[in-house]
Amino acid sequence: MIEQAHIDALTGILGDKGVVTRAEDRQAYETGARYDHGLASVVLRPATTAETSTTVAYCVRHGITLIPQSGNTGLVSGSTPDASGTEAILSLDRLTKTFELDLDNRSVRVDAGFRLSDLNRRLEEHGLFFPIDLGADPRIGGMIATNTGGSRFLKYGDVRRNVLGMTVVLADEDGTVLNLQCDLRKNNTGVDWKQLFVGTSGAFGVVTDCVLNLERLPQQTATALLVPASGAHVMPLLRAMEERLGAYLSAFEGMSSNAVKAAFAHVPSLKNPFQGGHVPDYVILTEISRTWAPREGEQSLDAVLETVLAEIWEMETAPLADAFVGPPHEIWALRHALSEGVKHLGKLIAFDVSFNRGDIMAFCDHMKAEMPAKFPGVTVCDFGHIGDGGVHFNLVVAKDSPLLGDPTFEPRLREWVFAVAVEEYHGSFSAEHAIGRRNQAYYDLYTTDKLKDMAKGLKTLTSPGKLGSVRFG
Amino acid sequence: MIEQAHIDALTGILGDKGVVTRAEDRQAYETGARYDHGLASVVLRPATTAETSTTVAYCVRHGITLIPQSGNTGLVSGSTPDASGTEAILSLDRLTKTFELDLDNRSVRVDAGFRLSDLNRRLEEHGLFFPIDLGADPRIGGMIATNTGGSRFLKYGDVRRNVLGMTVVLADEDGTVLNLQCDLRKNNTGVDWKQLFVGTSGAFGVVTDCVLNLERLPQQTATALLVPASGAHVMPLLRAMEERLGAYLSAFEGMSSNAVKAAFAHVPSLKNPFQGGHVPDYVILTEISRTWAPREGEQSLDAVLETVLAEIWEMETAPLADAFVGPPHEIWALRHALSEGVKHLGKLIAFDVSFNRGDIMAFCDHMKAEMPAKFPGVTVCDFGHIGDGGVHFNLVVAKDSPLLGDPTFEPRLREWVFAVAVEEYHGSFSAEHAIGRRNQAYYDLYTTDKLKDMAKGLKTLTSPGKLGSVRFG
Repeated sequence: MIEQAHIDALTGILGDKGVVTRAEDRQAYETGARYDHGLASVVLRPATTAETSTTVAYCVRHGITLIPQSGNTGLVSGSTPDASGTEAILSLDRLTKTFELDLDNRSVRVDAGFRLSDLNRRLEEHGLFFPIDLGADPRIGGMIATNTGGSRFLKYGDVRRNVLGMTVVLADEDGTVLNLQCDLRKNNTGVDWKQLFVGTSGAFGVVTDCVLNLERLPQQTATALLVPASGAHVMPLLRAMEERLGAYLSAFEGMSSNAVKAAFAHVPSLKNPFQGGHVPDYVILTEISRTWAPREGEQSLDAVLETVLAEIWEMETAPLADAFVGPPHEIWALRHALSEGVKHLGKLIAFDVSFNRGDIMAFCDHMKAEMPAKFPGVTVCDFGHIGDGGVHFNLVVAKDSPLLGDPTFEPRLREWVFAVAVEEYHGSFSAEHAIGRRNQAYYDLYTTDKLKDMAKGLKTLTSPGKLGSVRFG
Repeated sequence: MIEQAHIDALTGILGDKGVVTRAEDRQAYETGARYDHGLASVVLRPATTAETSTTVAYCVRHGITLIPQSGNTGLVSGSTPDASGTEAILSLDRLTKTFELDLDNRSVRVDAGFRLSDLNRRLEEHGLFFPIDLGADPRIGGMIATNTGGSRFLKYGDVRRNVLGMTVVLADEDGTVLNLQCDLRKNNTGVDWKQLFVGTSGAFGVVTDCVLNLERLPQQTATALLVPASGAHVMPLLRAMEERLGAYLSAFEGMSSNAVKAAFAHVPSLKNPFQGGHVPDYVILTEISRTWAPREGEQSLDAVLETVLAEIWEMETAPLADAFVGPPHEIWALRHALSEGVKHLGKLIAFDVSFNRGDIMAFCDHMKAEMPAKFPGVTVCDFGHIGDGGVHFNLVVAKDSPLLGDPTFEPRLREWVFAVAVEEYHGSFSAEHAIGRRNQAYYDLYTTDKLKDMAKGLKTLTSPGKLGSVRFG
């Protein structure tokens, strides 16, 4: 699928370790985390920015499509090649050398191939971490390309908020290296170009290293499961928590009963705190945290949480029906079991949508009400980040359902869900997974011609070569 | 300076109130907050996005240069016309209608002409505020165009972090209205175009309304003046505070003795807490805050601050020489008197630079050491936002200094300060004031040709018409 002359030239640039051609060695790179499996002509693994630049320049000059791949943990088929066998993967997995910690500036410069877990392991002894909390273990370059948010967005924000600078290789004939390195927190001297490379799936350039803001690791954490009096009480409950806890509040996650039941069924070791084991319609996981160690004379964080919940309990609007303060590892174990639990119910069709916070419950209720008539046999197992408006709107189809034999079913379902989310509720068709191949059709559908034209122009300005799985414009 | 036919046409679009032609009425619009005074051909005051669009389209089609002006409180001559009398001002001061508060989403949609103080006054009863704390009282559109940060950046970030969406009018022949309205916190569905209009001085489009993130108003605040053992102890002190206070920490401002002395001299009512009135070499103002009202059994915030300072006092590295906990209004009064105090010492030449936090003190020491030989008679009166790396590097020349008669003096001084800041210390020549006419030469000098070309291309893509005081590319 790729000429031997290209392989030889690229091996000249990257060495043997940098060029993967054998089918069995390529396979892990060709297989995505969720739906996707493609066929790569070759996997290219530069170990430095200079090698990345030379590789990209070579491929642009020879018309070779490059699909940048970081940890390959994305959920929208953004980092794997198509089935044609003509696309080359540009893997960041050898870009793992630079690690320059700056304690005064509370920042670190790292190569884009660092795994999140490796980064945080090295930061831990300094009481610091990169505060994006995810279920997966991506590499940093991919986190930038998808602008991941995660479960503690409410407190720490997304990747965009926490990137101070970066180096980018553009897909032009020179493989131009764009030096956007910067460790400044305040800097307004023109277009903030790094923003272009955040959340755009690697289509405008390949990030090879970056400077990240770090936060202090929490030293105390308290968690609870809350049962809102009803769906309509979720927002008053969130507002009551924010009012009383401010920056203590580090998570406010919503879990539908279907998702919670699936988790309990799949992981029997999970503790079920609900009376008689009866799972309520909706459950909130909340976490509060402090960055310092317990001090003499200071209330424990559990006591703070209990006090606040008692105050909320007494509110006239009565948003709270029940609450269980428990140890963080137990409470989070339930949250972390949701994905796997839901997958075991049948075929999972997942949506990563987001809304104005006040519209989340209305959207989910709307869908639950209409689903039986529209798509009988499809179960809604939503959960998500209520505090920031993100919803993992997961649908499950029983494995023996006749719907699965209908090739029009999944496209029809997707179209309907996105139409309601985007057109009726003014939500986003991709909250934190970015576009990828999976959402290309919805980018095409929901982006105005003017913005598409502007994106196309921007692509020509930066990376006119064939880069990335997403077509902008 | 402008043909009567244009005035008539623009009056047809905007009405009499929307077109200011008389010299005495134009004057406030022509005079900037610090250095600048220009001459406008006319002042145009649209009251809606539609009027803005029609006005911009008309001016683009007739080759009329538009200088967008918001609160006109900027410090880099970004919002006033040049002296030619050919530029028209596009004022946002009538765009003050929309105010849609969304309590569940903790956000507000406002027209870009809202004053920060008016916005916060309307938010106060809800216990909310737009958390950008500034000495001036700008309008929101200008805050976006300059990406202001201010004194509490450390906790709340800059405007960029707090803007969720906006409407922008592009300077093309149609006055295209770009709908980037969005009240979502997580949304990754393509290029995040709103980033282009943040901090770029209005050159790429005119923001007419926006959705802003809001934060809960602090209900408790404690403040102290800290005396670091030496300049080298400022960073260890900041780190010790961050470690012990986390998200409580809402300000960490540095003040040089020259600046503090000037404030005491200018405002005799200020309380001088230092022994014998002797001002130390460097003083830190720190503030901690909580968003909830005091609770029974909870330590007061003053007690928390005292406890933390006692812990820091005991540290082996001994970063702290002295500390004075005092009421917030007294402590902040000193900080707020610095600007005026410094101005009364002589002619002020101000620089708004920023650094890696660890380099701030080194830069200031470097300049103080070299100044007497390079520019005798120039006094360094720096103060700034140590917590985020921003420094208001203010220089004062005695009013009777012969330097002021030398026309090469100020350009030479500026060149030298920026050269040391940018080239030696890898700092920024504009931390939070953006570019404006004042910093155009430094944009031209310190921006690579590649980035200039890209900015030029982006200008053509978005607003090819003559818009704004800054030339990109």
